[in-house]
Amino acid sequence: MIDGIRERLLVQPGRAAGIRDRDPADRLGLDGKEESQELVDTLILELRGLQERLWAEARRSLLVVLQGLDTSGKDGTIRHVFHGVNPQGCRVASFKVPTVTELAHDYLWRVHAVCPARGEIGIFNRSHYEDLLVVRVKKLVPRAVWRRRYRHVRELERILAEEGTTIVKVFLHISPGEQRERLQARLDDPEKRWKFRAADLEDRALWDAYTDAYEDALTKTSTAWAPWYVVPADRKWVRNAAVASLLVETLRELDPQFPEPAEDMSGIVVE
Amino acid sequence: MIDGIRERLLVQPGRAAGIRDRDPADRLGLDGKEESQELVDTLILELRGLQERLWAEARRSLLVVLQGLDTSGKDGTIRHVFHGVNPQGCRVASFKVPTVTELAHDYLWRVHAVCPARGEIGIFNRSHYEDLLVVRVKKLVPRAVWRRRYRHVRELERILAEEGTTIVKVFLHISPGEQRERLQARLDDPEKRWKFRAADLEDRALWDAYTDAYEDALTKTSTAWAPWYVVPADRKWVRNAAVASLLVETLRELDPQFPEPAEDMSGIVVE
Repeated sequence: MIDGIRERLLVQPGRAAGIRDRDPADRLGLDGKEESQELVDTLILELRGLQERLWAEARRSLLVVLQGLDTSGKDGTIRHVFHGVNPQGCRVASFKVPTVTELAHDYLWRVHAVCPARGEIGIFNRSHYEDLLVVRVKKLVPRAVWRRRYRHVRELERILAEEGTTIVKVFLHISPGEQRERLQARLDDPEKRWKFRAADLEDRALWDAYTDAYEDALTKTSTAWAPWYVVPADRKWVRNAAVASLLVETLRELDPQFPEPAEDMSGIVVE
Repeated sequence: MIDGIRERLLVQPGRAAGIRDRDPADRLGLDGKEESQELVDTLILELRGLQERLWAEARRSLLVVLQGLDTSGKDGTIRHVFHGVNPQGCRVASFKVPTVTELAHDYLWRVHAVCPARGEIGIFNRSHYEDLLVVRVKKLVPRAVWRRRYRHVRELERILAEEGTTIVKVFLHISPGEQRERLQARLDDPEKRWKFRAADLEDRALWDAYTDAYEDALTKTSTAWAPWYVVPADRKWVRNAAVASLLVETLRELDPQFPEPAEDMSGIVVE
Protein backbone atom coordinates (compact mmCIF):
# COMPACT_ATOMS: atom_id res chain seq x y z
CA MET A 1 0.00 0.00 0.00
CA ILE A 2 1.30 3.43 -0.89
CA ASP A 3 0.72 5.43 2.28
CA GLY A 4 -1.90 8.13 2.15
CA ILE A 5 -2.45 7.45 -1.54
CA ARG A 6 -5.88 9.01 -1.67
CA GLU A 7 -4.89 12.23 0.02
CA ARG A 8 -1.86 12.56 -2.26
CA LEU A 9 -3.68 12.13 -5.54
CA LEU A 10 -7.05 13.62 -4.63
CA VAL A 11 -8.50 16.62 -6.41
CA GLN A 12 -9.81 18.41 -3.33
CA PRO A 13 -13.50 19.22 -3.91
CA GLY A 14 -13.95 22.92 -4.47
CA ARG A 15 -10.27 23.46 -5.34
CA ALA A 16 -8.56 23.68 -8.73
CA ALA A 17 -7.30 20.31 -9.99
CA GLY A 18 -3.97 21.91 -10.97
CA ILE A 19 -3.14 19.21 -13.51
CA ARG A 20 -0.28 21.24 -15.00
CA ASP A 21 1.40 21.54 -11.61
CA ARG A 22 1.38 17.79 -11.02
CA ASP A 23 4.31 15.66 -12.15
CA PRO A 24 3.30 12.81 -14.49
CA ALA A 25 6.66 11.16 -13.74
CA ASP A 26 6.23 11.19 -9.94
CA ARG A 27 7.44 7.91 -8.40
CA LEU A 28 5.25 8.30 -5.31
CA GLY A 29 8.17 7.17 -3.22
CA LEU A 30 8.52 3.82 -4.97
CA ASP A 31 12.10 2.63 -5.58
CA GLY A 32 11.62 0.95 -8.91
CA LYS A 33 9.80 -1.54 -11.05
CA GLU A 34 10.57 -4.60 -8.97
CA GLU A 35 9.44 -3.18 -5.65
CA SER A 36 6.33 -1.89 -7.37
CA GLN A 37 5.48 -5.26 -8.89
CA GLU A 38 5.69 -6.96 -5.51
CA LEU A 39 3.39 -4.34 -4.07
CA VAL A 40 0.93 -4.71 -6.92
CA ASP A 41 0.91 -8.50 -6.52
CA THR A 42 0.07 -8.17 -2.82
CA LEU A 43 -2.62 -5.58 -3.50
CA ILE A 44 -4.21 -7.68 -6.21
CA LEU A 45 -4.57 -10.56 -3.77
CA GLU A 46 -6.21 -8.28 -1.26
CA LEU A 47 -8.44 -6.77 -3.96
CA ARG A 48 -9.61 -10.25 -4.88
CA GLY A 49 -10.64 -10.97 -1.29
CA LEU A 50 -12.39 -7.63 -0.93
CA GLN A 51 -14.29 -8.17 -4.17
CA GLU A 52 -15.43 -11.59 -3.03
CA ARG A 53 -16.92 -10.02 0.06
CA LEU A 54 -18.48 -7.14 -1.90
CA TRP A 55 -20.11 -9.67 -4.22
CA ALA A 56 -21.32 -11.89 -1.37
CA GLU A 57 -22.67 -8.93 0.55
CA ALA A 58 -24.57 -7.73 -2.55
CA ARG A 59 -25.62 -4.45 -0.97
CA ARG A 60 -23.18 -1.95 -2.42
CA SER A 61 -21.16 -1.49 -5.58
CA LEU A 62 -17.95 0.13 -6.74
CA LEU A 63 -17.63 2.20 -9.90
CA VAL A 64 -14.17 2.96 -11.25
CA VAL A 65 -14.03 5.64 -13.95
CA LEU A 66 -10.84 5.63 -16.04
CA GLN A 67 -10.05 8.68 -18.11
CA GLY A 68 -6.90 9.93 -19.80
CA LEU A 69 -5.51 11.04 -23.11
CA ASP A 70 -4.56 8.52 -25.81
CA THR A 71 -1.82 6.11 -24.70
CA SER A 72 -2.26 7.14 -21.06
CA GLY A 73 -2.78 3.48 -20.22
CA LYS A 74 -6.47 2.87 -19.63
CA ASP A 75 -6.44 -0.60 -21.21
CA GLY A 76 -3.15 -1.46 -19.52
CA THR A 77 -4.46 -0.45 -16.11
CA ILE A 78 -7.50 -2.69 -16.49
CA ARG A 79 -5.29 -5.58 -17.64
CA HIS A 80 -2.79 -5.26 -14.82
CA VAL A 81 -4.90 -4.25 -11.86
CA PHE A 82 -8.06 -6.27 -12.45
CA HIS A 83 -6.72 -9.52 -13.85
CA GLY A 84 -7.13 -11.16 -10.47
CA VAL A 85 -10.76 -10.33 -9.77
CA ASN A 86 -13.67 -12.67 -10.37
CA PRO A 87 -15.11 -11.63 -13.73
CA GLN A 88 -18.61 -12.63 -12.64
CA GLY A 89 -18.73 -9.67 -10.29
CA CYS A 90 -16.86 -7.24 -12.49
CA ARG A 91 -17.96 -5.61 -15.70
CA VAL A 92 -16.03 -3.31 -17.95
CA ALA A 93 -17.94 -0.81 -20.06
CA SER A 94 -16.01 0.84 -22.89
CA PHE A 95 -17.61 3.94 -24.26
CA LYS A 96 -17.06 4.40 -27.98
CA VAL A 97 -18.57 6.88 -30.36
CA PRO A 98 -22.31 6.74 -29.54
CA THR A 99 -24.60 4.67 -31.75
CA VAL A 100 -27.69 6.07 -33.41
CA THR A 101 -29.87 4.63 -30.64
CA GLU A 102 -27.66 6.12 -27.96
CA LEU A 103 -27.68 9.51 -29.66
CA ALA A 104 -31.46 9.36 -29.64
CA HIS A 105 -31.34 9.71 -25.84
CA ASP A 106 -29.63 12.07 -23.44
CA TYR A 107 -25.89 11.40 -23.21
CA LEU A 108 -26.18 9.90 -19.71
CA TRP A 109 -28.75 7.29 -20.73
CA ARG A 110 -26.23 4.74 -22.00
CA VAL A 111 -24.03 5.39 -18.97
CA HIS A 112 -26.72 4.84 -16.37
CA ALA A 113 -27.77 1.65 -18.15
CA VAL A 114 -24.40 -0.04 -17.52
CA CYS A 115 -23.74 1.16 -14.00
CA PRO A 116 -22.79 -1.69 -11.67
CA ALA A 117 -25.48 -3.59 -9.79
CA ARG A 118 -25.17 -4.18 -6.05
CA GLY A 119 -22.20 -6.42 -5.37
CA GLU A 120 -20.48 -5.57 -8.64
CA ILE A 121 -17.36 -3.64 -9.53
CA GLY A 122 -17.97 -1.62 -12.66
CA ILE A 123 -15.08 -0.22 -14.68
CA PHE A 124 -15.66 2.54 -17.19
CA ASN A 125 -13.01 2.66 -19.91
CA ARG A 126 -13.72 6.24 -20.89
CA SER A 127 -17.10 7.43 -19.67
CA HIS A 128 -19.70 10.18 -19.57
CA TYR A 129 -16.76 12.57 -19.15
CA GLU A 130 -16.13 12.35 -22.87
CA ASP A 131 -19.33 14.38 -23.19
CA LEU A 132 -17.63 17.17 -21.23
CA LEU A 133 -14.24 16.76 -22.90
CA VAL A 134 -14.10 15.69 -26.52
CA VAL A 135 -17.37 17.43 -27.38
CA ARG A 136 -15.89 20.63 -25.99
CA VAL A 137 -12.48 20.37 -27.63
CA LYS A 138 -13.88 19.30 -30.98
CA LYS A 139 -16.78 21.77 -30.66
CA LEU A 140 -19.34 19.03 -31.26
CA VAL A 141 -21.94 20.85 -29.18
CA PRO A 142 -22.32 24.53 -28.29
CA ARG A 143 -20.64 25.89 -25.17
CA ALA A 144 -23.99 26.37 -23.44
CA VAL A 145 -24.64 22.65 -23.78
CA TRP A 146 -21.41 21.29 -22.36
CA ARG A 147 -21.21 23.89 -19.60
CA ARG A 148 -24.37 22.70 -17.88
CA ARG A 149 -23.17 19.11 -17.99
CA TYR A 150 -20.83 19.53 -15.01
CA ARG A 151 -23.88 19.81 -12.85
CA HIS A 152 -25.66 16.92 -14.56
CA VAL A 153 -22.70 14.68 -13.89
CA ARG A 154 -22.29 15.76 -10.28
CA GLU A 155 -25.94 15.11 -9.63
CA LEU A 156 -26.18 11.74 -11.39
CA GLU A 157 -23.12 10.65 -9.45
CA ARG A 158 -24.78 11.85 -6.28
CA ILE A 159 -27.78 9.68 -7.02
CA LEU A 160 -25.56 6.66 -7.60
CA ALA A 161 -23.54 7.34 -4.46
CA GLU A 162 -26.52 7.92 -2.19
CA GLU A 163 -28.13 4.76 -3.49
CA GLY A 164 -25.11 2.58 -2.71
CA THR A 165 -22.37 2.99 -5.31
CA THR A 166 -18.91 4.08 -4.26
CA ILE A 167 -17.30 6.03 -7.08
CA VAL A 168 -13.57 6.36 -7.74
CA LYS A 169 -12.53 8.47 -10.71
CA VAL A 170 -9.02 8.17 -12.03
CA PHE A 171 -7.31 10.54 -14.42
CA LEU A 172 -4.22 8.89 -15.90
CA HIS A 173 -1.81 11.76 -16.25
CA ILE A 174 0.96 11.52 -18.87
CA SER A 175 3.34 14.06 -20.33
CA PRO A 176 3.49 15.05 -24.00
CA GLY A 177 6.99 13.52 -24.21
CA GLU A 178 5.82 10.16 -22.92
CA GLN A 179 2.90 10.17 -25.33
CA ARG A 180 5.28 10.84 -28.23
CA GLU A 181 7.30 7.77 -27.31
CA ARG A 182 4.25 5.57 -26.92
CA LEU A 183 2.73 6.66 -30.22
CA GLN A 184 6.06 6.12 -31.96
CA ALA A 185 6.31 2.68 -30.38
CA ARG A 186 2.91 1.82 -31.78
CA LEU A 187 4.02 2.87 -35.23
CA ASP A 188 7.34 1.03 -35.04
CA ASP A 189 6.12 -2.23 -33.57
CA PRO A 190 4.18 -4.38 -36.08
CA GLU A 191 2.36 -6.01 -33.16
CA LYS A 192 1.18 -2.67 -31.79
CA ARG A 193 0.47 -0.95 -35.07
CA TRP A 194 -3.22 -1.95 -35.03
CA LYS A 195 -3.68 0.35 -32.06
CA PHE A 196 -2.56 3.43 -33.97
CA ARG A 197 -5.20 5.68 -35.46
CA ALA A 198 -4.48 8.74 -37.55
CA ALA A 199 -6.91 10.61 -35.30
CA ASP A 200 -4.43 10.12 -32.44
CA LEU A 201 -2.20 12.72 -34.07
CA GLU A 202 -5.09 15.15 -34.48
CA ASP A 203 -5.87 14.77 -30.80
CA ARG A 204 -2.21 15.18 -29.90
CA ALA A 205 -2.16 18.52 -31.70
CA LEU A 206 -5.00 19.57 -29.39
CA TRP A 207 -3.02 18.72 -26.23
CA ASP A 208 -3.50 22.11 -24.60
CA ALA A 209 -7.19 22.26 -25.32
CA TYR A 210 -7.65 18.77 -23.85
CA THR A 211 -5.66 19.71 -20.77
CA ASP A 212 -7.84 22.78 -20.29
CA ALA A 213 -10.96 20.66 -20.67
CA TYR A 214 -9.66 18.09 -18.17
CA GLU A 215 -8.63 20.80 -15.73
CA ASP A 216 -12.16 22.19 -15.78
CA ALA A 217 -13.88 18.83 -15.66
CA LEU A 218 -11.83 17.56 -12.73
CA THR A 219 -12.16 20.83 -10.86
CA LYS A 220 -15.91 21.01 -11.32
CA THR A 221 -16.81 17.37 -10.73
CA SER A 222 -14.51 16.24 -7.95
CA THR A 223 -16.94 15.89 -5.07
CA ALA A 224 -17.02 14.31 -1.64
CA TRP A 225 -19.19 11.52 -3.08
CA ALA A 226 -17.29 11.01 -6.36
CA PRO A 227 -13.72 12.26 -6.05
CA TRP A 228 -11.17 12.51 -8.81
CA TYR A 229 -7.61 11.24 -8.38
CA VAL A 230 -4.78 12.35 -10.65
CA VAL A 231 -2.50 9.34 -11.11
CA PRO A 232 1.02 9.97 -12.44
CA ALA A 233 1.14 7.65 -15.44
CA ASP A 234 4.42 8.25 -17.26
CA ARG A 235 5.75 5.16 -15.47
CA LYS A 236 3.42 2.20 -15.89
CA TRP A 237 4.64 0.55 -12.69
CA VAL A 238 3.86 3.65 -10.66
CA ARG A 239 0.45 3.89 -12.30
CA ASN A 240 -0.43 0.28 -11.52
CA ALA A 241 0.69 0.52 -7.92
CA ALA A 242 -1.18 3.79 -7.49
CA VAL A 243 -4.48 2.54 -8.95
CA ALA A 244 -4.31 -0.74 -7.03
CA SER A 245 -3.60 1.21 -3.83
CA LEU A 246 -6.50 3.57 -4.45
CA LEU A 247 -8.93 0.73 -4.96
CA VAL A 248 -7.75 -1.35 -2.05
CA GLU A 249 -7.85 1.62 0.30
CA THR A 250 -11.35 2.47 -0.88
CA LEU A 251 -12.61 -1.09 -0.48
CA ARG A 252 -10.96 -1.48 2.92
CA GLU A 253 -12.92 1.51 4.07
CA LEU A 254 -16.13 0.06 2.63
CA ASP A 255 -15.34 -3.12 4.51
CA PRO A 256 -17.91 -5.40 2.85
CA GLN A 257 -19.08 -8.34 4.93
CA PHE A 258 -20.22 -11.86 4.13
CA PRO A 259 -23.94 -11.85 4.87
CA GLU A 260 -25.31 -13.55 7.94
CA PRO A 261 -27.19 -16.77 7.17
CA ALA A 262 -30.94 -16.14 7.06
CA GLU A 263 -31.62 -18.57 9.86
CA ASP A 264 -29.72 -20.28 12.61
CA MET A 265 -28.12 -23.37 11.08
CA SER A 266 -26.15 -24.44 14.12
CA GLY A 267 -28.28 -27.53 14.81
CA ILE A 268 -28.30 -28.84 11.24
CA VAL A 269 -26.55 -32.15 10.57
CA VAL A 270 -26.15 -33.23 6.97
CA GLU A 271 -26.66 -36.95 6.80
CA MET B 1 -58.83 24.01 -25.40
CA ILE B 2 -59.54 24.91 -21.81
CA ASP B 3 -58.20 28.45 -21.50
CA GLY B 4 -55.11 28.93 -19.39
CA ILE B 5 -55.18 25.27 -18.42
CA ARG B 6 -51.55 25.13 -17.38
CA GLU B 7 -51.69 28.16 -15.14
CA ARG B 8 -54.88 26.88 -13.49
CA LEU B 9 -53.57 23.43 -12.62
CA LEU B 10 -49.89 24.18 -12.11
CA VAL B 11 -48.10 23.59 -8.84
CA GLN B 12 -46.11 26.81 -8.77
CA PRO B 13 -42.42 25.91 -8.26
CA GLY B 14 -41.33 26.85 -4.77
CA ARG B 15 -44.91 27.03 -3.47
CA ALA B 16 -46.94 24.45 -1.57
CA ALA B 17 -48.98 22.18 -3.82
CA GLY B 18 -52.03 22.62 -1.57
CA ILE B 19 -53.67 19.41 -2.72
CA ARG B 20 -56.24 19.48 0.07
CA ASP B 21 -57.39 22.94 -0.96
CA ARG B 22 -58.03 21.91 -4.53
CA ASP B 23 -61.43 20.59 -5.57
CA PRO B 24 -61.32 17.13 -7.19
CA ALA B 25 -64.81 17.76 -8.58
CA ASP B 26 -63.92 21.05 -10.29
CA ARG B 27 -65.54 21.30 -13.73
CA LEU B 28 -62.95 23.77 -15.02
CA GLY B 29 -65.76 25.75 -16.61
CA LEU B 30 -67.00 22.89 -18.76
CA ASP B 31 -70.75 22.56 -19.12
CA GLY B 32 -71.03 18.80 -19.21
CA LYS B 33 -70.02 15.49 -20.67
CA GLU B 34 -71.10 16.23 -24.21
CA GLU B 35 -69.33 19.53 -24.56
CA SER B 36 -66.26 17.94 -23.05
CA GLN B 37 -66.29 15.00 -25.46
CA GLU B 38 -66.42 17.35 -28.44
CA LEU B 39 -63.49 19.26 -27.05
CA VAL B 40 -61.50 16.09 -26.42
CA ASP B 41 -62.17 14.86 -29.95
CA THR B 42 -60.85 18.12 -31.39
CA LEU B 43 -57.81 18.07 -29.13
CA ILE B 44 -56.99 14.46 -29.98
CA LEU B 45 -56.92 15.37 -33.66
CA GLU B 46 -54.56 18.23 -32.97
CA LEU B 47 -52.43 16.03 -30.70
CA ARG B 48 -52.08 13.52 -33.50
CA GLY B 49 -50.78 16.19 -35.88
CA LEU B 50 -48.38 17.58 -33.29
CA GLN B 51 -47.04 14.10 -32.54
CA GLU B 52 -46.46 13.46 -36.22
CA ARG B 53 -44.32 16.59 -36.40
CA LEU B 54 -42.49 15.74 -33.17
CA TRP B 55 -41.68 12.31 -34.58
CA ALA B 56 -40.56 13.66 -37.95
CA GLU B 57 -38.44 16.36 -36.35
CA ALA B 58 -36.76 13.72 -34.14
CA ARG B 59 -34.91 16.30 -32.06
CA ARG B 60 -36.96 16.52 -28.88
CA SER B 61 -39.23 14.30 -26.85
CA LEU B 62 -42.18 14.58 -24.50
CA LEU B 63 -42.47 12.69 -21.23
CA VAL B 64 -45.85 12.49 -19.52
CA VAL B 65 -45.79 11.23 -15.94
CA LEU B 66 -49.15 10.00 -14.63
CA GLN B 67 -49.57 9.59 -10.90
CA GLY B 68 -52.58 9.23 -8.65
CA LEU B 69 -54.14 6.99 -6.03
CA ASP B 70 -55.88 3.75 -6.98
CA THR B 71 -58.88 4.26 -9.26
CA SER B 72 -57.81 7.84 -10.02
CA GLY B 73 -57.92 6.97 -13.71
CA LYS B 74 -54.36 6.51 -14.97
CA ASP B 75 -55.28 3.68 -17.33
CA GLY B 76 -58.44 5.45 -18.43
CA THR B 77 -56.53 8.65 -19.20
CA ILE B 78 -54.08 6.78 -21.40
CA ARG B 79 -56.92 4.99 -23.19
CA HIS B 80 -58.96 8.12 -23.84
CA VAL B 81 -56.34 10.76 -24.53
CA PHE B 82 -53.74 8.78 -26.44
CA HIS B 83 -55.85 6.45 -28.51
CA GLY B 84 -55.34 8.65 -31.54
CA VAL B 85 -51.57 8.92 -31.58
CA ASN B 86 -49.27 6.85 -33.73
CA PRO B 87 -48.08 4.01 -31.49
CA GLN B 88 -44.72 3.90 -33.28
CA GLY B 89 -43.74 7.19 -31.71
CA CYS B 90 -45.38 6.60 -28.36
CA ARG B 91 -44.39 4.22 -25.64
CA VAL B 92 -46.08 3.56 -22.35
CA ALA B 93 -43.98 2.37 -19.42
CA SER B 94 -45.88 0.90 -16.49
CA PHE B 95 -43.89 0.69 -13.30
CA LYS B 96 -44.80 -2.33 -11.19
CA VAL B 97 -43.12 -3.70 -8.11
CA PRO B 98 -39.40 -3.75 -9.06
CA THR B 99 -37.86 -7.01 -10.21
CA VAL B 100 -34.78 -8.52 -8.59
CA THR B 101 -32.60 -7.08 -11.38
CA GLU B 102 -34.15 -3.65 -10.98
CA LEU B 103 -33.67 -3.73 -7.22
CA ALA B 104 -30.01 -4.53 -7.80
CA HIS B 105 -29.61 -0.98 -9.16
CA ASP B 106 -30.51 2.46 -7.93
CA TYR B 107 -34.27 3.15 -8.17
CA LEU B 108 -33.83 5.55 -11.09
CA TRP B 109 -31.97 3.05 -13.27
CA ARG B 110 -35.08 1.36 -14.67
CA VAL B 111 -36.71 4.74 -15.14
CA HIS B 112 -33.89 6.31 -17.13
CA ALA B 113 -33.71 3.18 -19.30
CA VAL B 114 -37.24 3.68 -20.66
CA CYS B 115 -37.20 7.44 -21.09
CA PRO B 116 -38.42 8.49 -24.51
CA ALA B 117 -35.93 8.85 -27.36
CA ARG B 118 -35.89 11.98 -29.50
CA GLY B 119 -39.14 12.22 -31.44
CA GLU B 120 -41.06 10.02 -29.04
CA ILE B 121 -43.83 10.64 -26.55
CA GLY B 122 -43.22 8.59 -23.42
CA ILE B 123 -46.00 7.95 -20.94
CA PHE B 124 -45.19 6.76 -17.45
CA ASN B 125 -48.08 4.91 -15.81
CA ARG B 126 -46.82 5.38 -12.28
CA SER B 127 -43.16 6.30 -12.19
CA HIS B 128 -40.08 7.04 -10.11
CA TYR B 129 -42.42 8.99 -7.82
CA GLU B 130 -43.54 5.72 -6.27
CA ASP B 131 -40.06 5.65 -4.74
CA LEU B 132 -40.92 8.89 -2.93
CA LEU B 133 -44.50 7.90 -2.13
CA VAL B 134 -45.30 4.26 -1.45
CA VAL B 135 -41.87 3.59 0.08
CA ARG B 136 -42.53 6.45 2.49
CA VAL B 137 -46.09 5.55 3.38
CA LYS B 138 -45.35 1.84 3.76
CA LYS B 139 -42.01 2.58 5.45
CA LEU B 140 -40.12 0.41 2.98
CA VAL B 141 -36.96 2.51 3.33
CA PRO B 142 -35.79 4.77 6.17
CA ARG B 143 -36.78 8.44 6.21
CA ALA B 144 -33.21 9.53 5.43
CA VAL B 145 -33.35 7.54 2.21
CA TRP B 146 -36.60 8.87 0.77
CA ARG B 147 -35.93 12.44 1.90
CA ARG B 148 -32.89 12.87 -0.31
CA ARG B 149 -34.76 11.49 -3.31
CA TYR B 150 -36.59 14.76 -3.97
CA ARG B 151 -33.30 16.22 -5.06
CA HIS B 152 -32.35 13.14 -7.08
CA VAL B 153 -35.58 13.37 -8.99
CA ARG B 154 -35.34 17.10 -9.59
CA GLU B 155 -31.83 16.72 -10.92
CA LEU B 156 -32.47 13.69 -13.14
CA GLU B 157 -35.42 15.56 -14.59
CA ARG B 158 -33.19 18.57 -15.14
CA ILE B 159 -30.78 16.39 -17.12
CA LEU B 160 -33.61 15.05 -19.26
CA ALA B 161 -35.05 18.52 -19.79
CA GLU B 162 -31.77 20.22 -20.67
CA GLU B 163 -30.98 17.42 -23.09
CA GLY B 164 -34.24 17.78 -25.00
CA THR B 165 -37.15 16.18 -23.15
CA THR B 166 -40.18 18.23 -22.20
CA ILE B 167 -41.70 16.85 -19.03
CA VAL B 168 -45.34 17.13 -17.99
CA LYS B 169 -46.30 15.59 -14.66
CA VAL B 170 -49.95 14.97 -13.93
CA PHE B 171 -51.43 14.17 -10.54
CA LEU B 172 -54.93 12.78 -10.98
CA HIS B 173 -56.77 14.12 -7.97
CA ILE B 174 -59.81 12.24 -6.69
CA SER B 175 -61.82 12.47 -3.49
CA PRO B 176 -62.23 9.65 -0.98
CA GLY B 177 -65.93 9.49 -1.79
CA GLU B 178 -65.30 9.02 -5.49
CA GLN B 179 -62.75 6.32 -4.78
CA ARG B 180 -65.28 4.48 -2.61
CA GLU B 181 -67.75 4.44 -5.50
CA ARG B 182 -65.17 3.26 -7.99
CA LEU B 183 -63.87 0.48 -5.76
CA GLN B 184 -67.45 -0.62 -5.06
CA ALA B 185 -68.17 -0.60 -8.78
CA ARG B 186 -65.20 -2.86 -9.33
CA LEU B 187 -66.52 -5.29 -6.75
CA ASP B 188 -70.08 -5.21 -8.04
CA ASP B 189 -69.35 -5.50 -11.75
CA PRO B 190 -68.19 -9.00 -12.77
CA GLU B 191 -66.36 -7.46 -15.75
CA LYS B 192 -64.39 -5.08 -13.54
CA ARG B 193 -63.77 -7.41 -10.62
CA TRP B 194 -60.38 -8.51 -12.00
CA LYS B 195 -59.11 -5.00 -11.34
CA PHE B 196 -59.83 -5.21 -7.64
CA ARG B 197 -57.01 -6.12 -5.28
CA ALA B 198 -57.33 -6.57 -1.54
CA ALA B 199 -54.33 -4.27 -1.19
CA ASP B 200 -56.50 -1.45 -2.59
CA LEU B 201 -58.36 -1.38 0.71
CA GLU B 202 -55.14 -1.29 2.71
CA ASP B 203 -54.00 1.66 0.64
CA ARG B 204 -57.37 3.35 1.04
CA ALA B 205 -56.97 3.14 4.81
CA LEU B 206 -53.74 5.10 4.38
CA TRP B 207 -55.43 7.92 2.46
CA ASP B 208 -54.12 10.70 4.70
CA ALA B 209 -50.57 9.40 4.69
CA TYR B 210 -50.64 9.15 0.89
CA THR B 211 -52.03 12.67 0.60
CA ASP B 212 -49.24 13.95 2.86
CA ALA B 213 -46.66 12.13 0.76
CA TYR B 214 -48.11 13.53 -2.48
CA GLU B 215 -48.30 17.03 -1.01
CA ASP B 216 -44.59 16.88 -0.19
CA ALA B 217 -43.57 15.24 -3.45
CA LEU B 218 -45.47 17.71 -5.62
CA THR B 219 -44.26 20.68 -3.58
CA LYS B 220 -40.64 19.62 -3.70
CA THR B 221 -40.41 18.44 -7.29
CA SER B 222 -42.52 20.89 -9.24
CA THR B 223 -39.89 22.83 -11.14
CA ALA B 224 -39.69 25.18 -14.06
CA TRP B 225 -38.32 22.32 -16.15
CA ALA B 226 -40.66 19.58 -14.93
CA PRO B 227 -43.84 21.07 -13.51
CA TRP B 228 -46.62 19.22 -11.76
CA TYR B 229 -50.24 19.75 -12.65
CA VAL B 230 -53.07 18.77 -10.30
CA VAL B 231 -55.94 17.55 -12.49
CA PRO B 232 -59.40 17.31 -10.92
CA ALA B 233 -60.33 13.70 -11.62
CA ASP B 234 -63.62 12.97 -9.88
CA ARG B 235 -65.30 13.54 -13.24
CA LYS B 236 -63.69 11.50 -15.98
CA TRP B 237 -64.81 13.89 -18.71
CA VAL B 238 -63.18 16.82 -16.96
CA ARG B 239 -60.02 14.80 -16.43
CA ASN B 240 -59.77 13.81 -20.10
CA ALA B 241 -60.36 17.34 -21.34
CA ALA B 242 -57.85 18.71 -18.87
CA VAL B 243 -55.06 16.25 -19.73
CA ALA B 244 -55.65 16.61 -23.46
CA SER B 245 -55.58 20.41 -23.09
CA LEU B 246 -52.36 20.28 -21.06
CA LEU B 247 -50.61 18.16 -23.66
CA VAL B 248 -51.80 20.11 -26.65
CA GLU B 249 -50.85 23.42 -25.07
CA THR B 250 -47.41 22.05 -24.22
CA LEU B 251 -46.84 20.67 -27.70
CA ARG B 252 -48.11 23.83 -29.36
CA GLU B 253 -45.48 25.73 -27.46
CA LEU B 254 -42.80 23.23 -28.50
CA ASP B 255 -43.98 23.73 -32.06
CA PRO B 256 -42.12 20.80 -33.65
CA GLN B 257 -41.30 21.18 -37.33
CA PHE B 258 -40.97 18.81 -40.24
CA PRO B 259 -37.25 18.74 -41.00
CA GLU B 260 -35.87 20.49 -44.03
CA PRO B 261 -34.74 18.10 -46.77
CA ALA B 262 -30.97 17.55 -46.60
CA GLU B 263 -30.45 18.90 -50.10
CA ASP B 264 -32.27 20.98 -52.59
CA MET B 265 -34.58 18.66 -54.49
CA SER B 266 -36.35 21.29 -56.55
CA GLY B 267 -34.80 20.20 -59.83
CA ILE B 268 -35.41 16.49 -59.43
CA VAL B 269 -37.81 14.80 -61.82
CA VAL B 270 -38.76 11.21 -61.13
CA GLU B 271 -38.95 9.38 -64.43
